[in-house]
Amino acid sequence: MPGDAVKVAPHAYKVVLENDRVRVLESRMKPGETTEMHSHPDLVACALSAAKFKFTLPDGQSMVIELNAGDAVFVGAVDHSTENIGSSDGHVLLVELK
Amino acid sequence: MPGDAVKVAPHAYKVVLENDRVRVLESRMKPGETTEMHSHPDLVACALSAAKFKFTLPDGQSMVIELNAGDAVFVGAVDHSTENIGSSDGHVLLVELK
Repeated sequence: MPGDAVKVAPHAYKVVLENDRVRVLESRMKPGETTEMHSHPDLVACALSAAKFKFTLPDGQSMVIELNAGDAVFVGAVDHSTENIGSSDGHVLLVELK
Repeated sequence: MPGDAVKVAPHAYKVVLENDRVRVLESRMKPGETTEMHSHPDLVACALSAAKFKFTLPDGQSMVIELNAGDAVFVGAVDHSTENIGSSDGHVLLVELK
């Protein structure tokens, strides 16, 4: 299993809040920036900016997600690598559920 | 116990996502706008704009919270009424935990 997002990609993920129910990560990624493969538990992504990300799963399959500022998206527990394939800085809060 | 936020104050809270783990509310409140007393479970508030709110508890005590865009704040289950006492529109995602 890949490592925790914050350990694998500290350039992209920072812990801003943690207690017994949640851990909240702030993610900032510039256009073209990538992360190595890492793990997330179930989470809600709250987009603070418009952004376009490509997520690649361990089996090589990938998907593209476009977010608008203010979007909230549930993401089930997943291992993936990430790339900001848009033209703007990506800024997202990830509310990880314990 | 006061009613659910969405039932008590549909002008301020809209459900944008719900599953077995979370319900996410989008809250928009203009300066001076208020809500009646209502209930929230444990939640993470993700501020999409700067905003200044006054929260009043059932016993009459109140507190003021100022948020900057991008802030994430954990709020334990609470009954309260709300007022936007700032000069800008409040825009917040509330990730309610089940």
